Amino acid sequence: MSGRFVVFEGGDGVGKSHQAAWLAEWLTDRGVDVVRTFEPGDSPAGQLIRQIVLSPSTGDLSPRAEALLYAADKAHHVYAVVKPALERGAVVICDRYVDSTLAYQGAGRVLDLSEVESINRWATEHLLPDLTVLMDLAPEHGVGTMTERDRIEAEGDDFHERVREGFLALAARDPERYLVIQARDSKDANRAAIAARVGALLGLPGDHQKLSDAPGTMQS
Amino acid sequence: MSGRFVVFEGGDGVGKSHQAAWLAEWLTDRGVDVVRTFEPGDSPAGQLIRQIVLSPSTGDLSPRAEALLYAADKAHHVYAVVKPALERGAVVICDRYVDSTLAYQGAGRVLDLSEVESINRWATEHLLPDLTVLMDLAPEHGVGTMTERDRIEAEGDDFHERVREGFLALAARDPERYLVIQARDSKDANRAAIAARVGALLGLPGDHQKLSDAPGTMQS
Repeated sequence: MSGRFVVFEGGDGVGKSHQAAWLAEWLTDRGVDVVRTFEPGDSPAGQLIRQIVLSPSTGDLSPRAEALLYAADKAHHVYAVVKPALERGAVVICDRYVDSTLAYQGAGRVLDLSEVESINRWATEHLLPDLTVLMDLAPEHGVGTMTERDRIEAEGDDFHERVREGFLALAARDPERYLVIQARDSKDANRAAIAARVGALLGLPGDHQKLSDAPGTMQS
Repeated sequence: MSGRFVVFEGGDGVGKSHQAAWLAEWLTDRGVDVVRTFEPGDSPAGQLIRQIVLSPSTGDLSPRAEALLYAADKAHHVYAVVKPALERGAVVICDRYVDSTLAYQGAGRVLDLSEVESINRWATEHLLPDLTVLMDLAPEHGVGTMTERDRIEAEGDDFHERVREGFLALAARDPERYLVIQARDSKDANRAAIAARVGALLGLPGDHQKLSDAPGTMQS
């Protein structure tokens, strides 16, 4: 496949979707074919799967059923959205992917993580991101203090710290494929780091460190 | 778990549901706590999952997503229906289980069967039936000639023959846990064989070979 697959990962409220949107615009301005997407749920089948997981009518959903439903969502998303875009040469920018499943599942500690990972690798046809941007947030700066959070998790601080450790452990396992940035650092600094790494990945002309023409950088 | 798990398997239209209903009534008449159920879809979550698999709105569903959705249905069914019944000591009689997935999937030959089996074993918490009654039907007596068929598969004869071979291979792998009967044999003869095997499994008094008091045997 000739495209590139870039994933944004991290806890709730660290600003993944903002940075993903910025990167999509920055690349589009440079003439790159970009597909921006997210998991879970960015397909008609995925929307229906989400309804099952969230529906009160299904009652007490089995933990294995829930894990398999999320894996089914990923399977269809890779098959219907991500792979076709990569095959035509696009850069796919995705909010959340398998790492989120593993970090949250690991924090929940209900199921064996290696089995959940095997199923998700099978689901996604072993498609790994070319680059995962992990937006790390130290627990002392707590999710609740972020202004760009998507939603506030009802779980306690211990849970969020375990999620964070899960993401960092995944990045440490395969550092070549990760860019770990601090969500609390300035947006401009983080954008420069992302642009440098993505620019190198795509072989863009070496202007990607100069962000004066990048959209949105003056508003932060 | 103190209950027993009895599964009926076989192609479409071989009479699984009729024999399962008969067995449930026969056991109930002997004071046995029976739960009769089926896969896929015998739970609120299962019904929703079936809708996704069958919905035209999801378009061309990925083969892996479909396999994972069926596995999710099984996971929830075992967790919410089968295991609670077995734990209270009931006999669970189920139309179709993992063998159907493997036989039909193997006949379709889209996915690696060993991987599909691993996922389904994980989904079902490695719960195996105590007895699987495989109702075999030789291809020369074709599905289309059966009067009790549930529905006529749109697939051709080659497909049905591959499904049949898949079921027989599974039975041959673990013969102790299977009773293979010919769907074309008389209902009474098959009921006697089922009653003998289930009676022995449950340690019922040795009247289970005498079927004169069994419901329904005179109507066939």
